[in-house]
Amino acid sequence: MHLNAGCELLFEAQGPTPLILMLRPRSGAGQWIIREEYQITPAVNVTEFTDMYGNLCQRVVAPEGPFSIHFSATVQTADFIDVSPGAPYTPVEDLPDDVLHYTLPSRYCQSDQLGNLAAQITENTEPGYNQAEAIRKWINENVRYEYGTSDASTSAVETADKRVGVCRDFTHLGISLCRALNIPARMVVGYLYQLNPMDLHAWFEAYVDGRWFTFDATQQQARGNRITVAYGRDAADVAFTTQFGPMTLNEMKVWVDTVGPDEGENAMTDAEKNSEDVPTLVNSIGSNDQTE
Amino acid sequence: MHLNAGCELLFEAQGPTPLILMLRPRSGAGQWIIREEYQITPAVNVTEFTDMYGNLCQRVVAPEGPFSIHFSATVQTADFIDVSPGAPYTPVEDLPDDVLHYTLPSRYCQSDQLGNLAAQITENTEPGYNQAEAIRKWINENVRYEYGTSDASTSAVETADKRVGVCRDFTHLGISLCRALNIPARMVVGYLYQLNPMDLHAWFEAYVDGRWFTFDATQQQARGNRITVAYGRDAADVAFTTQFGPMTLNEMKVWVDTVGPDEGENAMTDAEKNSEDVPTLVNSIGSNDQTE
Amino acid sequence: MHLNAGCELLFEAQGPTPLILMLRPRSGAGQWIIREEYQITPAVNVTEFTDMYGNLCQRVVAPEGPFSIHFSATVQTADFIDVSPGAPYTPVEDLPDDVLHYTLPSRYCQSDQLGNLAAQITENTEPGYNQAEAIRKWINENVRYEYGTSDASTSAVETADKRVGVCRDFTHLGISLCRALNIPARMVVGYLYQLNPMDLHAWFEAYVDGRWFTFDATQQQARGNRITVAYGRDAADVAFTTQFGPMTLNEMKVWVDTVGPDEGENAMTDAEKNSEDVPTLVNSIGSNDQTE
Amino acid sequence: MHLNAGCELLFEAQGPTPLILMLRPRSGAGQWIIREEYQITPAVNVTEFTDMYGNLCQRVVAPEGPFSIHFSATVQTADFIDVSPGAPYTPVEDLPDDVLHYTLPSRYCQSDQLGNLAAQITENTEPGYNQAEAIRKWINENVRYEYGTSDASTSAVETADKRVGVCRDFTHLGISLCRALNIPARMVVGYLYQLNPMDLHAWFEAYVDGRWFTFDATQQQARGNRITVAYGRDAADVAFTTQFGPMTLNEMKVWVDTVGPDEGENAMTDAEKNSEDVPTLVNSIGSNDQTE
Repeated sequence: MHLNAGCELLFEAQGPTPLILMLRPRSGAGQWIIREEYQITPAVNVTEFTDMYGNLCQRVVAPEGPFSIHFSATVQTADFIDVSPGAPYTPVEDLPDDVLHYTLPSRYCQSDQLGNLAAQITENTEPGYNQAEAIRKWINENVRYEYGTSDASTSAVETADKRVGVCRDFTHLGISLCRALNIPARMVVGYLYQLNPMDLHAWFEAYVDGRWFTFDATQQQARGNRITVAYGRDAADVAFTTQFGPMTLNEMKVWVDTVGPDEGENAMTDAEKNSEDVPTLVNSIGSNDQTE
Repeated sequence: MHLNAGCELLFEAQGPTPLILMLRPRSGAGQWIIREEYQITPAVNVTEFTDMYGNLCQRVVAPEGPFSIHFSATVQTADFIDVSPGAPYTPVEDLPDDVLHYTLPSRYCQSDQLGNLAAQITENTEPGYNQAEAIRKWINENVRYEYGTSDASTSAVETADKRVGVCRDFTHLGISLCRALNIPARMVVGYLYQLNPMDLHAWFEAYVDGRWFTFDATQQQARGNRITVAYGRDAADVAFTTQFGPMTLNEMKVWVDTVGPDEGENAMTDAEKNSEDVPTLVNSIGSNDQTE
Repeated sequence: MHLNAGCELLFEAQGPTPLILMLRPRSGAGQWIIREEYQITPAVNVTEFTDMYGNLCQRVVAPEGPFSIHFSATVQTADFIDVSPGAPYTPVEDLPDDVLHYTLPSRYCQSDQLGNLAAQITENTEPGYNQAEAIRKWINENVRYEYGTSDASTSAVETADKRVGVCRDFTHLGISLCRALNIPARMVVGYLYQLNPMDLHAWFEAYVDGRWFTFDATQQQARGNRITVAYGRDAADVAFTTQFGPMTLNEMKVWVDTVGPDEGENAMTDAEKNSEDVPTLVNSIGSNDQTE
Repeated sequence: MHLNAGCELLFEAQGPTPLILMLRPRSGAGQWIIREEYQITPAVNVTEFTDMYGNLCQRVVAPEGPFSIHFSATVQTADFIDVSPGAPYTPVEDLPDDVLHYTLPSRYCQSDQLGNLAAQITENTEPGYNQAEAIRKWINENVRYEYGTSDASTSAVETADKRVGVCRDFTHLGISLCRALNIPARMVVGYLYQLNPMDLHAWFEAYVDGRWFTFDATQQQARGNRITVAYGRDAADVAFTTQFGPMTLNEMKVWVDTVGPDEGENAMTDAEKNSEDVPTLVNSIGSNDQTE
């Protein structure tokens, strides 16, 4: 399918604020970026680098006052995600070197503390794909989706306890439970067609049978038409924006639409969001405010 | 100074167990590896890779039964570490791309939750080196060093609360407090000459004034003659051994000695240790026991 | 300045032909990609990777028959390039690790054989920027620009001898002469506003005074408004397309225009080119024709 | 087999001379470094980095006067190299991303000019392993091994023409002919047990059937017990020493011995060599002599 997807972020900076942006999807397995637009207002110097996970990151210093980012892309996506019931567990000794670190615990994924729960959920389950799917299904059925019940510091152990959260929390829990079984798992952030309500989204991938498979604990069915923007260990690595200073996100719009006869942007229906609903997509880091 | 340093680890594996070892120091700033020996018994296939932080890692599968690792090296070290009171804070926008991620929270370093404590400790302190040193000093004076008070899951938030721990905990807290001030900080593991009691050691580095500086909250004075073995965000990244399965560390010896007239190993005084004392140097991950 | 730049390549493949494309500029120092479009006809699977130099590369297998690539972008460029007469030579021992390999000879830049010429040209010239500029000026004044006088196998030693060539040859010679003086030099390919005749272009960068500077031996004056597409040691690394099999480039259009009141593409004046004129931008590699 | 291998290089520097050294083998597939010693006299600061190919490189500035390097290692090696007659060609579209660049021509391997010879040699040969072996055999039978017939600037095209050279030339020709058939090929430098006369050695690897295989055109039979020190495109990448300034190699010793009852070094029989015989192992680059 051809999708037009994008977002608009309107910030107000209380002073010059360094930002790292991670909004630019890369062409790769399962998606091809046909068109891309990226505008920052006011115009400031931007430099780009590739992080340890291969994500394209942009660095800017937002000046004091309003600061807006507009990103949109036309992307060819896969209509279906691969599913592979019964696909075997990949033993640790056969994992590629650069996949190994996805077995380790990380900030929001304390896999070292969730071994018992993982074992319970996957009891009598064949090692591999079926374990990851059992985890996904368990979360989908046992964790309630509700905005406002978690924040940027919520981690998988809390979600396992409170059994409520948003896509970020579902994802952290899924990752942690897979890693507790020595299944490498990573966080993916991006867009999902027909997500309701529309928003930036997060899901996870698990590595079994020699490759990554997509799992989304917020959905009842496996669905395709996803646009991957970034990969990482957890939300600390893949925030769409990481800000180093006092800056308010006043408004955010996200859209994902099919490319129709009128070719796109005019046909978009924007999902307006209030910044309070999206704590999980923005890192706000540190207080070394050198600008006072 | 020329040091002979090394360790011997005696394991008992309950079944074939994949291991990642990180025991091999690299020559680099401040140290030169003159001689190195690395033996594994029984002999098994070993492959080596470089991780995301530049550390040399070895992968093995320990067979069921006893498994031992003997590593030793002769290293030229710097007698003093650089100190630089007053060295200025490096603004986030001036950090090198590959240093940026050391500002982010990680598994054991929840810097996003320790902003208030960091602000208190560094009140009226000049941004930069002096902040990192104030943090180091505060930890040294306010956290009690005691074996057995923490374990492999202890993180900086708990240490800030309980104010007791070992070198790993001191280090996690120091890193977290620096990051809370937007000062990049990373964990270092290795050897320290005349550490008492002798053990594998951990400390941290903070990035100010355009470079990394060494800080060790377990010591009252800045001391040199360190051998760096690995760098990472926190203990999840730099465990000397990460094991994926049931395996017991029965005995560990660590030694660091000056190279004297008899040239080394014979002169070593071993510090024998019981595995219960060193939970923090070994990752034990996951329960996907495919070997049953 | 805001530029609309792009190219269209029309191929005819005699059989399924693997291709590596390097057409996608990255945002970075001196340029910001505001908009980008990339279309391949017929639609085939494309995967993308980042090469050793940081370039974004796309891999496709062109099916038998016509195959076309259309790329366009709107890019904010710098109106001027930095010049710095008198900027000092950076001693080899002070070069960053990842710049060192740009001192070595490469396929088309046999710097090891051009030491005498480099010494002659830069006699009595202050080490550093002035040497690179003396080299650029000498090439501009002593090598004749003429299409059809060189081909894809022409290297710097031949150009030094025959003193005729195109932008690729000027660039290889400039790079080789710099490297012969231990000045790191690399090839840049991309677009240049108001190049006449319009074409894909190549120039070089030399590393002095701790940073890269732009030099273009085909131009009498230093000119800005360049769009960098890729960096590498020489043309072997940075061909816009590298094909592995029998495939004919039938037509190529290249355009670079200012963004005017009608915002772009309609206003483009295409410079149509015949494939015979552009041997240097296309690698045609090997004859292991498995498709027969 | 357990081998003791090493080399001693005695230089005389006419002034302070930056050097890059590549003498330290890495543990990896087929070899395990049990013991390693590395000494430089006089003692100077050394820093180490990993290059684009994964090789460990050391940077030093040799002071004016005598400068010596002593390296030795005890290495567990494989007694046999893998051979796989009939193993299939890996199509370009199936090559891993990081193998692709080994299909491109490089400084001493002008594969773009040797397509006809490659086609002749491999006529009626099954694509893949058999082609690489046909090339190896053809070189072994048609190129004469003779010291002093080539130098540091000799490339594969010349060797194909003159049909005489040393291991470096044999290797460059083998690599070029493989690449001309779209078979990725890379240079390996290191030690070979029972090489006669003993010397630092070079051979090549070709990528077929999804992995690298070892080929040595200087040998009549496939032989194991090799110690790999470095990989690269050709000799420009993998010189044991690359010097940037006037420096003379006065003496070089190389040894490779089995570890016997007296455990090694005493039992070594040194192969003393004159620097004139080893032009191919040392890069001497550039003339920007800033030290006068």
